Amino acid sequence: MPRSSGRPLRVALIGYAFMGRAHSNAWRQVGAYFDVPAFERAVLVGRDAAGVQAAAAELGWAETATDWREVIARPDIDVVDICTPGHLHAEVAIAALAAGKHVLVEKPLANTLDEAERMAAAAVEARETSGAIAMVGFNYRRVPALALARQLVAAGRVGQIRQMRASYLQDWLVDADAPMTWRLRKETAGSGALGDLASHAVDQLLALSGASVVGVSAQTATFTPERRGENGLERVTVDDAAWATLTFDTGARASLEVSRTATGRKNALQIEIYGDRGAIRFDLERLDELQFLDLSDEITTQGFRTILVTEPEHPYLDAWWPQGHILGWEHSFVHEVRDLLTAIENADAITPDFGDGLAVQRVLDAIERSAAQGGAIVVSNVPDEVVGAAGRQGANAPA
Amino acid sequence: MPRSSGRPLRVALIGYAFMGRAHSNAWRQVGAYFDVPAFERAVLVGRDAAGVQAAAAELGWAETATDWREVIARPDIDVVDICTPGHLHAEVAIAALAAGKHVLVEKPLANTLDEAERMAAAAVEARETSGAIAMVGFNYRRVPALALARQLVAAGRVGQIRQMRASYLQDWLVDADAPMTWRLRKETAGSGALGDLASHAVDQLLALSGASVVGVSAQTATFTPERRGENGLERVTVDDAAWATLTFDTGARASLEVSRTATGRKNALQIEIYGDRGAIRFDLERLDELQFLDLSDEITTQGFRTILVTEPEHPYLDAWWPQGHILGWEHSFVHEVRDLLTAIENADAITPDFGDGLAVQRVLDAIERSAAQGGAIVVSNVPDEVVGAAGRQGANAPA
Amino acid sequence: MPRSSGRPLRVALIGYAFMGRAHSNAWRQVGAYFDVPAFERAVLVGRDAAGVQAAAAELGWAETATDWREVIARPDIDVVDICTPGHLHAEVAIAALAAGKHVLVEKPLANTLDEAERMAAAAVEARETSGAIAMVGFNYRRVPALALARQLVAAGRVGQIRQMRASYLQDWLVDADAPMTWRLRKETAGSGALGDLASHAVDQLLALSGASVVGVSAQTATFTPERRGENGLERVTVDDAAWATLTFDTGARASLEVSRTATGRKNALQIEIYGDRGAIRFDLERLDELQFLDLSDEITTQGFRTILVTEPEHPYLDAWWPQGHILGWEHSFVHEVRDLLTAIENADAITPDFGDGLAVQRVLDAIERSAAQGGAIVVSNVPDEVVGAAGRQGANAPA
Amino acid sequence: MPRSSGRPLRVALIGYAFMGRAHSNAWRQVGAYFDVPAFERAVLVGRDAAGVQAAAAELGWAETATDWREVIARPDIDVVDICTPGHLHAEVAIAALAAGKHVLVEKPLANTLDEAERMAAAAVEARETSGAIAMVGFNYRRVPALALARQLVAAGRVGQIRQMRASYLQDWLVDADAPMTWRLRKETAGSGALGDLASHAVDQLLALSGASVVGVSAQTATFTPERRGENGLERVTVDDAAWATLTFDTGARASLEVSRTATGRKNALQIEIYGDRGAIRFDLERLDELQFLDLSDEITTQGFRTILVTEPEHPYLDAWWPQGHILGWEHSFVHEVRDLLTAIENADAITPDFGDGLAVQRVLDAIERSAAQGGAIVVSNVPDEVVGAAGRQGANAPA
Repeated sequence: MPRSSGRPLRVALIGYAFMGRAHSNAWRQVGAYFDVPAFERAVLVGRDAAGVQAAAAELGWAETATDWREVIARPDIDVVDICTPGHLHAEVAIAALAAGKHVLVEKPLANTLDEAERMAAAAVEARETSGAIAMVGFNYRRVPALALARQLVAAGRVGQIRQMRASYLQDWLVDADAPMTWRLRKETAGSGALGDLASHAVDQLLALSGASVVGVSAQTATFTPERRGENGLERVTVDDAAWATLTFDTGARASLEVSRTATGRKNALQIEIYGDRGAIRFDLERLDELQFLDLSDEITTQGFRTILVTEPEHPYLDAWWPQGHILGWEHSFVHEVRDLLTAIENADAITPDFGDGLAVQRVLDAIERSAAQGGAIVVSNVPDEVVGAAGRQGANAPA
Repeated sequence: MPRSSGRPLRVALIGYAFMGRAHSNAWRQVGAYFDVPAFERAVLVGRDAAGVQAAAAELGWAETATDWREVIARPDIDVVDICTPGHLHAEVAIAALAAGKHVLVEKPLANTLDEAERMAAAAVEARETSGAIAMVGFNYRRVPALALARQLVAAGRVGQIRQMRASYLQDWLVDADAPMTWRLRKETAGSGALGDLASHAVDQLLALSGASVVGVSAQTATFTPERRGENGLERVTVDDAAWATLTFDTGARASLEVSRTATGRKNALQIEIYGDRGAIRFDLERLDELQFLDLSDEITTQGFRTILVTEPEHPYLDAWWPQGHILGWEHSFVHEVRDLLTAIENADAITPDFGDGLAVQRVLDAIERSAAQGGAIVVSNVPDEVVGAAGRQGANAPA
Repeated sequence: MPRSSGRPLRVALIGYAFMGRAHSNAWRQVGAYFDVPAFERAVLVGRDAAGVQAAAAELGWAETATDWREVIARPDIDVVDICTPGHLHAEVAIAALAAGKHVLVEKPLANTLDEAERMAAAAVEARETSGAIAMVGFNYRRVPALALARQLVAAGRVGQIRQMRASYLQDWLVDADAPMTWRLRKETAGSGALGDLASHAVDQLLALSGASVVGVSAQTATFTPERRGENGLERVTVDDAAWATLTFDTGARASLEVSRTATGRKNALQIEIYGDRGAIRFDLERLDELQFLDLSDEITTQGFRTILVTEPEHPYLDAWWPQGHILGWEHSFVHEVRDLLTAIENADAITPDFGDGLAVQRVLDAIERSAAQGGAIVVSNVPDEVVGAAGRQGANAPA
Repeated sequence: MPRSSGRPLRVALIGYAFMGRAHSNAWRQVGAYFDVPAFERAVLVGRDAAGVQAAAAELGWAETATDWREVIARPDIDVVDICTPGHLHAEVAIAALAAGKHVLVEKPLANTLDEAERMAAAAVEARETSGAIAMVGFNYRRVPALALARQLVAAGRVGQIRQMRASYLQDWLVDADAPMTWRLRKETAGSGALGDLASHAVDQLLALSGASVVGVSAQTATFTPERRGENGLERVTVDDAAWATLTFDTGARASLEVSRTATGRKNALQIEIYGDRGAIRFDLERLDELQFLDLSDEITTQGFRTILVTEPEHPYLDAWWPQGHILGWEHSFVHEVRDLLTAIENADAITPDFGDGLAVQRVLDAIERSAAQGGAIVVSNVPDEVVGAAGRQGANAPA
């Protein structure tokens, strides 16, 4: 077990771009709001020495380093938080787990299914060997409204789920003249809206339903096939948008739609759940609200309730402000590290773990295969004991 | 040409159930609001003599009849409005057209593709022979907000359309204990949510985009496979819900989702259009509103505009009340018969015509075939000269 | 009693402008949707012979007349519906009641408090003498969502009301260059937003709360003091906007704000009710929806429910379309004449009666007096037996 | 000038309850997002030694102290942030200013007008003597959507303002059985909803309009006059709710309504502005959104735009996350200290300063006087040179 002594846990963060900043915020804030075990923001790791030093000063890390391997080898480091580009996730995470570190890796778990499988296997082994905890950063599970949605489903408030709808719509690629970037090349980005946006949406479908995907029929599209790069026009090799219909082992169905060309939609992860006792709706652009309809209300006053999820009784909210004082997007990461720290202290299981990340990756892979085959249903033949965990609600969630 | 004399047009309405009542309302109201050619509500036709007489008194028809063939044969009848169940559409409409009558037939055009093709052919022939006009009752084209949406698309305000989303969600089959009805048997209803709801949604996609569908990948589901009928449990042979991804000849894509088990959604036909210059959103449950985002607005004040479509400058609105006084669902039928009467008077083409109805039917048929094949893309090989009209905006629409 | 024979009730409508058209619609439609006593649209009355004839043909009235006194004198007329300008209400209504006719008069009851008092007295006398029924046309009481709101209040679902908020915002006078009209002269219009808009809002506050106003503190303003008339600049002598705080005999308070210069608000009658067990919100621009919050819901799922008031169990809705098919603004008048006809048939009391209209007028008068005195509280000293009826829910409402 | 050397500014925070926590968050976060002068979170001050030490550890302050006078006397302290109860504001702030410290004091400026006047005078004197900056913490000015609203008004996008509506509705006193607290006694709290909620609303009206209040007509109410305290029933001596109509020197009018008994409204500061060129609406429960209507849009596509205020071009947003990633309530305090630090560095004026705080206090005082006189208009006779600054937009705001 990594934490043999009574000293504070020491955290190393690798990467200081968008996600590195969001995770830094979480580590900086968590102690002021939650009762977590003692920890230190020990090392910020980045390839550029000057850049990482400036970032560490700004973001509040004690030391910096440029070689992640050295940091992982240090005995004084207990937790490794991986915010590198996706193609490095597997290598770093597997090494960190092998070194007995607790690991938090940003979503999606990996760029390829093969990497994800090796990571999940490494996590299972590390758990047995060293007790290390491996978490994947699907932070939206800790948006209070979505945590509340899981509670409502778990309490039977929507009944048997029949249909779900998940969409994640952004618009930053609407402009056909926007230039080529590494995000639009398959070799660097893995995929387009699929890995970036659908991974979140699929994770929500799994987590909210607690069910497994057994069939996938999908399409993808790239609306602007070429964009101007440094050396002239270059082929865009990832998807701008993707669509899928998912069939679950429970008989439930879900539609999925993701896009980076949905004009006017900025960050619209929208979830709808329709069950035989109730219904739920959510939109990340209004993330402090949850819509809930209870079929047991008498018909004359039945309607979607706009719940402002800011009551102390709501998940995570007693740590923050009085009712009606809304939280922002980055608070979900604070909740994420809060739960990770708590799980480490209690030697608890965590969700979403690498198995959950792998379950998402399997669905994304099936979507790509189905789309390549013209939309035929790809029946997933994943062993139940592996994907079974997907969508389970975390024992350490404050539900 | 049916209207050789100067006498008022005389209308016969066949059927007096839900749709018959909605059409009766339209014929009763249109003259009070719009400047239309003179016409008379001559005959209401129904099989049950007593029932049709009571209905005629209530709904405002001068005479009644029980045999539609006799009515069609009458020389004093100019317009035949068909609100029978779908499996009778073809027979009645083809006979009426052959008799030189103008025809309005409720949507969907027919229960089968074969019927729809024969009807479209009959309409083309009648147009040449007698000048008869044949209209299919996709009334939502005359919801002012959707007519405005077409105007905006036509004026280039959304630019090149890339993605559309159409869903039509209802919830009257949520209860698994609701009894078996003729609507849930394929032989009587043709299909489930597909013909009933998807027909409207597909028509909107065609009309709004002005494009043709060239590829379809689809799924259907029946969540409650058996329901209790008069003789015990009976198999439900139509779909509760359906999903499709459509590819258009312009390269645009659309997602389509329809359901009768979407808990809490009562009549939610929702349309979203994303182009490279703007975006549009609509919800039939708030049918007096249109959401429009104009990408040419400066970024700091850009946002979806909630347009209350009740200004005199909006389609059809100058006939009604001052701004801010909202219209209801049935007003769309008033606009429908207004445009039909105007087209008859001017010997104009009308939209949606039977060719438009056929275009919808082809897509529905492709959805069923794709779903039967496990979601593979069915490439439509419809001759351009037939489907080309689909989605064209009517010359006589008040745009 | 006017209706001694078994013949149909015969209705005369005076006026065919905006309100005359809305009432005509109601008389034309009511029989197709509701089970009402037989009646005939007998006479349309207007000063201009040609104009009234054209209107009668369009709106569906059998005869026309140009002298309302002659019509009132006719023994074959049972119901007189008064849609004249407000300054004629008193004379026509009092004469019609004296002639033993049932009377419906558009809101507000009159232009002055004195007229309103005489009308209310005449109605009481006529009721005793001839059994005539006198109704004032506060049609918004029959918007189904507002009728539902009254039901919820009556059932104790909001508990003891503490605060209400009523505003009625329009914007047709935003343009300072809009010309002078009779509506902006006190001698013809009586008042501005006050009589036109505040009358509706005050009636709702009275009807919803069932309480009486005992104190008023108010302000008015005219933002564009002069407008160009036919003879050059002319002084605007009515209010553009008004504000009041009302104190009720129950201790409840209400704020009131009305305006014709609220840019972008088209017809926004907004009502909010805050009680110790629940809350209600309504907006006329979305008149098919009611927002209701039930404090007895557990805190984690408490929120305003957006009720789509289109279920058959909702007031008046079983007569119309299936759930989710929304009604428009003019349907409230259909419900109004439905209830009037039913009350006549059953010799029932009706609400809102002239006493209710008078109660509104007293509040409007108090607002004007308070504003003239700089906002001091004007304590109403109206005898309880006169205003006591204000706000009572009608026995014949379909609640 | 306090900052004679190149060393970091050193900040002392007095108070660690709700507001102390919110301010601590701001000081902890600002450096990670904004380019501000170097500063140190030096001392947290509180009366209870153990309590303040625990809070300092949690909230991130280097030292603690129990005597604010000693801290103010320390030469190493440059900035004093006052989050004490309101009745201590004057004493602490005046002493700190006299000691040459920069001061930030939480809103409202003081509990009484007399205190506020003395504070404003002290601030003017300190500014001249030592260059000290005195800011009052109306943090909602730094909600990006409200800062954007000010920019739009300043740019003439709403034109001449005629009407404004401001309400601030909460519901934590709905329960008549909730116990007595110090917040409900005039001697400790000064006032009820008035000082707590109306102060924010009035500040917004002043800041957004840039105009001064010249007339006030107001009412207040206490719905639950007695509550159970430790010694039995005790009289509530502050208002539960208040209403006012304000007249501005520009001729504009505003309505104001605040309440702690508005069932279901949690933190609903709602602002509406109606001008002759456009309109604006805002709700603090959806603080990342601004509604804006531009009258210069053609009428057919005119409507309130729902602007998601998360673009890098929006005030303060380039420091945070990509578009569509919403901010929370406490971010406004981060912006507040960012602007304070920047003003200190540049020796700039700051808004809102103590003069702005005094202008708010004058309006609150006038409301209380008007309410005591039964709602008569109280004409403010404040010298223009004193209140003139109220509502001016800060030169150092990032507009």
